[in-house]
Amino acid sequence: MTDPSRDPSGDASRRVDLDLDLDLDLARKVLEAQPFSRLVGARITAFGGGAAVLEVDLREELRQQNGFAHGGVLSYAADNALTFAAGAALGAAVLTAGFSIQYVRPARGRTLVARAEVVHAGRRQAVVRCDLLTRDEEGAETLCAVAQGTVLSADT
Amino acid sequence: MTDPSRDPSGDASRRVDLDLDLDLDLARKVLEAQPFSRLVGARITAFGGGAAVLEVDLREELRQQNGFAHGGVLSYAADNALTFAAGAALGAAVLTAGFSIQYVRPARGRTLVARAEVVHAGRRQAVVRCDLLTRDEEGAETLCAVAQGTVLSADT
Amino acid sequence: MTDPSRDPSGDASRRVDLDLDLDLDLARKVLEAQPFSRLVGARITAFGGGAAVLEVDLREELRQQNGFAHGGVLSYAADNALTFAAGAALGAAVLTAGFSIQYVRPARGRTLVARAEVVHAGRRQAVVRCDLLTRDEEGAETLCAVAQGTVLSADT
Amino acid sequence: MTDPSRDPSGDASRRVDLDLDLDLDLARKVLEAQPFSRLVGARITAFGGGAAVLEVDLREELRQQNGFAHGGVLSYAADNALTFAAGAALGAAVLTAGFSIQYVRPARGRTLVARAEVVHAGRRQAVVRCDLLTRDEEGAETLCAVAQGTVLSADT
Repeated sequence: MTDPSRDPSGDASRRVDLDLDLDLDLARKVLEAQPFSRLVGARITAFGGGAAVLEVDLREELRQQNGFAHGGVLSYAADNALTFAAGAALGAAVLTAGFSIQYVRPARGRTLVARAEVVHAGRRQAVVRCDLLTRDEEGAETLCAVAQGTVLSADT
Repeated sequence: MTDPSRDPSGDASRRVDLDLDLDLDLARKVLEAQPFSRLVGARITAFGGGAAVLEVDLREELRQQNGFAHGGVLSYAADNALTFAAGAALGAAVLTAGFSIQYVRPARGRTLVARAEVVHAGRRQAVVRCDLLTRDEEGAETLCAVAQGTVLSADT
Repeated sequence: MTDPSRDPSGDASRRVDLDLDLDLDLARKVLEAQPFSRLVGARITAFGGGAAVLEVDLREELRQQNGFAHGGVLSYAADNALTFAAGAALGAAVLTAGFSIQYVRPARGRTLVARAEVVHAGRRQAVVRCDLLTRDEEGAETLCAVAQGTVLSADT
Repeated sequence: MTDPSRDPSGDASRRVDLDLDLDLDLARKVLEAQPFSRLVGARITAFGGGAAVLEVDLREELRQQNGFAHGGVLSYAADNALTFAAGAALGAAVLTAGFSIQYVRPARGRTLVARAEVVHAGRRQAVVRCDLLTRDEEGAETLCAVAQGTVLSADT
C-alpha cells in the first residue's frame, strides 16, 4: 500500500517502521482492542492510502436529550478517524496532537460515517481532514460536521 | 445565580427565557436525559455563573488500546462541559457551534475532570474554555487536554 | 446569484437583507475598504455561490525570518477568505466567530491563494473550509495550510 | 531561565539545543528579523519561562472596514505569540503546527496585547494558550479573543 501524499523528502531510515503498515484487517484489530470503540460500537470500513472510514450505528444509547446523536459521539468519531487515517500514512505509532470540529447540523439517521483523509504527511506529522455524515436507511448521506487535526508520529 | 460575564448590553427581553435558568439540580436532570452521558457514566459536580464541571470515572470500558482514556472520552467531556457552561450563562437553549481540543498528555487516573468556564457571553453566543484533568486516588490532578469553543443561543 | 448550500428551511423574511447580495465588484470594494487588506496587498479573484478566493503576492515584507511567508499572513488570508465566502452565502452582515488553521508546509512561492467554500449555510451561521496554497511563476500550486471556521450572521 | 512547565521526563540530550535559549533581547532580535512583524509594527514586551507577550499599536492601517482591528491582525498576533511562548520553553527551533482562535468582541483600543503561555511542554511539542486583549489610553484591558495551539520542536 503506497501513500501518494507522503513527502518525498522523508527519511528513508523510517521505512523500517513502515514494514508494519496496517491494512484493513490489522486496523480492525486495533479498533477492536479499544474498549471505548467497542462500547460505542464503531467499525472501520476502509483503511489505507492515507485515509480511513469509521462508522457507528446510531442506537438510542448514543443520543442526547433531543434525540440526535450526542456531539460527543461525533467528536469521538472525528478523533478516531483522523488518527487512523494518519496511521495509514505514517504507520502504527501515531499520537493525535489535537483537532477542531465544527458542527453543521444535528445528526440523525441510521449510521454516522466519518471519512478522514490525510491532507499532507511529512516525516513527523500528518494534517488530516474529516467529513462526518449521517446515512439513512435508503443510503442518502447528510453532512453533520467537519473536522481537521494534526497527528504526530509517536517516538519509538 | 448571576453571571458576571454577561454582556451588559444584552437585550432585556431575553430575561423571560432566563427565568428558566438551570441550577445544579436541573443541570443534572438534563445530563441524565442524555443517553450517551449515561453510557459514558458522566456526572455534573458544579454548575452556575457561566461555569460547569463534568466528571467521568475512567473505568476500563472507556480506554483505548494502550490503557489510557480514549481521546474520544476527553472530546466528549470537552464538548459537554463547554455546552453546559454556556448554558449556565445563556440559558437552557444552547447549541455548540464547534470546539478545538489539544491533547497535552495521555489521560490515566481514576477520574477525568472537565472544568469549563465562559470567557465571554454576548447576547447570541458564548466563548468557552475548558481544562481537562485526571485526578488520582490521592486527589492529585494532572492536566491532560485543553479545549475552547463557541456555543450559540439556539433560536426559540 | 444563487447559493445551493443554503438551508431550504431558511426564513423567507431574511430575503429583504439579501437583496444586498455582494457580487465580485462589490466584494472588491469591501476588501478595498479594509486598510489592513491594502497593507497586506490582498485581492479577491472570485466571489459568489458560497465561495471566495483571496490572493496575496508574497513580497519580501510579508515574510518571517527564514524567508517563508509569515504564518500570520496565512492566518489573515484564511480569516478573510472564510468571512467573504460566508458573506457570499449569508449576505453582507457577517461576523466570524472563529477558525482553526493547520499549517502543512512552509509557504514559499510567488502568490498565496486562499480558496474558501461554505460547507453549509443555515439561517444564522455558515461553516466554511479554506485551502491555502502557494502558486509559483509557472502556475504550479502547493498546499501550505488548511483552515475551517464558523461565521455568524451579524445582528441587524 | 527555568521553565516549570517542562515535562520532567524530557530527554537530557536535548539540553545541548537549549544552550541557545532566547532571552528577551534575543527574542526581540528574532522578531525584528521578521519583515511582516515590522510591517505590522509588533513588539515583544515579555519573554521567558514558557511565556511571551506581543503588543501591536492599532494604527489605522491595521483596521477593517468598520474601524476595528482586522481579525487578521489578531490571528497574526496569536500565531506569533503562541510560537514565541513555545520557543521560551522548547528553544529556538520551533514550528507551529496550527492554532484555533475564537473572537470574543470587536477589537478597538490603542494597543493589542497577546499574552501566550505554555500549558505543557514535552520533549517534542508544546501546547500553548493565548489571551488577546486591547488596552486603552488609561490602561484598561478588554478581552477580544482567545487562542490555543500546538507548537513542535523543529528537526535539527
